[in-house]
Amino acid sequence: MRLRHCLRKNKDDNTKKERVVILGSGWAGYALARTLDPAKFERVVISPRSYFVFTPLLASTAVGTLEFRTILEPVRRLPGIGFCQGWADDIDFRSKTVRVESNAADDPASKTVVPSDPVGPPGAAPKVKGEIFDISYDKLVIACGAYSQTFGIEGVREHAHFLRDIGDARRLRLRVLSLFEQCSYPSSSTDDSHQDTRPHLTDDDKRALLHFAIVGGGPTGIEYAAELHDLIYDDLATIYPDLLKFVRITVYDVAPKVLPMFDQALAKYAMDTFARQGIEVKTQHHLQRIRPADGHLGKEHGALRIKIQEYGDDEVSAGVVIWSTGLMANPLIQKLAGKEFVLPATAADPREPVDQQPAISRLSKDPRTGGLVTDAFLRAQQHTSSNDNGTKVTHLNDVFVIGDCAVIANDKTLPKTAQVASQQATHLAKRLNKGDVDKTTFKFRNWGTMTYLGSWKAIHQSSADELKGWIAWVFWRGAYLTKSMSVRNKLLVPVYWVVSWLFGRGISRF
Amino acid sequence: MRLRHCLRKNKDDNTKKERVVILGSGWAGYALARTLDPAKFERVVISPRSYFVFTPLLASTAVGTLEFRTILEPVRRLPGIGFCQGWADDIDFRSKTVRVESNAADDPASKTVVPSDPVGPPGAAPKVKGEIFDISYDKLVIACGAYSQTFGIEGVREHAHFLRDIGDARRLRLRVLSLFEQCSYPSSSTDDSHQDTRPHLTDDDKRALLHFAIVGGGPTGIEYAAELHDLIYDDLATIYPDLLKFVRITVYDVAPKVLPMFDQALAKYAMDTFARQGIEVKTQHHLQRIRPADGHLGKEHGALRIKIQEYGDDEVSAGVVIWSTGLMANPLIQKLAGKEFVLPATAADPREPVDQQPAISRLSKDPRTGGLVTDAFLRAQQHTSSNDNGTKVTHLNDVFVIGDCAVIANDKTLPKTAQVASQQATHLAKRLNKGDVDKTTFKFRNWGTMTYLGSWKAIHQSSADELKGWIAWVFWRGAYLTKSMSVRNKLLVPVYWVVSWLFGRGISRF
Repeated sequence: MRLRHCLRKNKDDNTKKERVVILGSGWAGYALARTLDPAKFERVVISPRSYFVFTPLLASTAVGTLEFRTILEPVRRLPGIGFCQGWADDIDFRSKTVRVESNAADDPASKTVVPSDPVGPPGAAPKVKGEIFDISYDKLVIACGAYSQTFGIEGVREHAHFLRDIGDARRLRLRVLSLFEQCSYPSSSTDDSHQDTRPHLTDDDKRALLHFAIVGGGPTGIEYAAELHDLIYDDLATIYPDLLKFVRITVYDVAPKVLPMFDQALAKYAMDTFARQGIEVKTQHHLQRIRPADGHLGKEHGALRIKIQEYGDDEVSAGVVIWSTGLMANPLIQKLAGKEFVLPATAADPREPVDQQPAISRLSKDPRTGGLVTDAFLRAQQHTSSNDNGTKVTHLNDVFVIGDCAVIANDKTLPKTAQVASQQATHLAKRLNKGDVDKTTFKFRNWGTMTYLGSWKAIHQSSADELKGWIAWVFWRGAYLTKSMSVRNKLLVPVYWVVSWLFGRGISRF
Repeated sequence: MRLRHCLRKNKDDNTKKERVVILGSGWAGYALARTLDPAKFERVVISPRSYFVFTPLLASTAVGTLEFRTILEPVRRLPGIGFCQGWADDIDFRSKTVRVESNAADDPASKTVVPSDPVGPPGAAPKVKGEIFDISYDKLVIACGAYSQTFGIEGVREHAHFLRDIGDARRLRLRVLSLFEQCSYPSSSTDDSHQDTRPHLTDDDKRALLHFAIVGGGPTGIEYAAELHDLIYDDLATIYPDLLKFVRITVYDVAPKVLPMFDQALAKYAMDTFARQGIEVKTQHHLQRIRPADGHLGKEHGALRIKIQEYGDDEVSAGVVIWSTGLMANPLIQKLAGKEFVLPATAADPREPVDQQPAISRLSKDPRTGGLVTDAFLRAQQHTSSNDNGTKVTHLNDVFVIGDCAVIANDKTLPKTAQVASQQATHLAKRLNKGDVDKTTFKFRNWGTMTYLGSWKAIHQSSADELKGWIAWVFWRGAYLTKSMSVRNKLLVPVYWVVSWLFGRGISRF
């Protein structure tokens, strides 16, 4: 099938099709775009990034086991897809249009954005103001995910590394490798046959720079700690043997136990594995501030100082802080949740008299997470109030919400994971394809949870079974060659696994 | 063999070895470091970048046929190598030390640096001032290459793209893909079934942005034009079919003919191939200035305006200008060439009386290229003048110059190519290994020249034979799996060739 251009329409073919506009290209939006039948719908993806990231392997790319592009799927490689790169800035539910600010001219190495102002526009302001334009829809799927939660803690936004997008992985990889290189300059030596000058970094400086602090004991934080351990002890140990004695990896979490989604036995196995590898796990520790270290260590080497409540005024030094604590609603969702709109009187309920006082609607917001509430069919829920009728809760026609930004009214406990997002997307796409969206409610089926622990060990837990050790690791690797990947990447990922195993990880700092 | 750390010395083993300090990690420096016998010498590479780039495939990475890291070889993967990342800033030939400014803390995605001031420090000033330290040597090999020649033309340094380092290739790849994305936003359409707003970019704007201007008709410029043509017509054509009509690729050169190293017949074959592909070649055109376009096209989309002497005041628009015109001496070489030094009287000539007026030396500089002159054994040549003796030309003990920064006194016609650099490096390393540096002079053996022309065609010329068309292309690809690559990359490069052929080039903008 011939690939087609952005919004271009073949008049004989597409003008009769309904246009489904999808906001987001993550697990929810991309899976929906893939599954939706191009013969029945004109599909238009609006997303600030031009690709889908296979996030479970992000930590592997951040340590050089895999090459970055092997976990990316460009949206435009989907045959017949329409794509507009930009931030969805607002939605007019009355005229059925999405306002978009283009960002294709920005720095394309996208990274996790954290809003500087809770209800403002996306935090990392684009270098140039993009063009603003409107895209109309017949059906709209809001799948634009969530932002990293920083709890407003000082310095996190400015100084911490995140691990949610491919640009994050690249920056983190460069930073870790650069820290080792910075600590490797000629050491003071008892050998006086050469007149090398004395070093600028003391052993204490190196200890500060080679402390890797991970905040958040969920699967992302734990897997990154494990992969980082492998990188350092498999690869960097042979290149910088003198620096190993300065290395420390610490995982901080506020909860009394990490990996809350695993049962006690598996979580304990994980902690025992970490203990043997020398990775420290500090539960019930509350991070209060991150700031640059004083003097040349902070200014020239980017060292950080972390204030932890339990340690009082004794700050901890680190060369890098990886932040992975949870999610919050993104600015578009916050804006939509607070916004009042008036629909044409016939749209909400055709039985209502048209000459009445216009009813004011508002999308339902989940007070705990800030997400948008849907009914069991994944349709956006609205509260409509009119002077005479009080408030009614109905669904908004042709508007769906899936993934991290959605909360199902009768099942608010679903976690914000790739699994939930992709199952919702597949469910909705199939229903739309069949034209029976209001016939079958969404049901989550837990396929189990997996986490890599380093040294070829993993844990896996589902309702049916539990696995740990290298069998779980084999399962972990196998599971990642799923249908969410293109054939291209299904070929390349195992090639890189073999190449990294044979020759070591990619350590070139680029 | 166990890998060893930077300058660390195993006292039983290394203290007796001579230390060979190598400035640079390009074709000359890296090949020398690879070939020099670690059992006989302590090898220390000083280079601002931590890897060797296999430059003949740089254009392939710039269009996504190959992944960037498949053409990088980290210096630290050489067993037993010593490495200091930094700029060699000065050399004291008397005390035999190199002054280094560290740069491991800088942005590691290195790019071509062009000095802003002819004799100043490297142009792109590091974000932080690096640490300064001295490294002593027993033998020194200067192999720090050359800079891109801009002829002082206004705007080249600020607005042109270069193609000499891996960071250049990445920026160029992102820029080209971004230009297509920027031109792809919804077009004005006769279909009014959707209320999309009108576009901001006119057809003329798109024509300006999708003009790819390549300055310099040497192999780099020609190959990039060919690879860019393949990217656009093999891959982007299916994704952005409506944009093809706006695309133009133009190669500008001041000379009456491009590819001067090929004979008339092959150069004509190249031009005929380009003509069929729609690539324009404008010889005898002199670029005089590059500036940003006016208004939103320049500010928001980065469009450029090029002034060409032959066109008078009519400027040409372009979305990107690729600059590949030649080389000039880099700042260290310029500094060394102008510098006076005094050696211990015994060093230069043991027969000279010690109590004499000290003789002032100066390295010989090639007036045409600004490079350092060597004798036929690749030893740096010096002019020494003393009051009574006049000027003598001798060689400087233990200092060698190879690669783009070297000019051999009795063979000044050698081109500045990877072939010359790597042959010089291998020659010198083998002579040092054998301890007979002054026994055999360096002789260049021409292995032939190859250039890719797009559409699976290439040309190849050597003293023995000439090839053109797809046979030359097969030869071109085969020749690139040379011994200069690690086994890792010898595996990965063909994998990517196959993957790109099967599934298209990597088009994710990252």
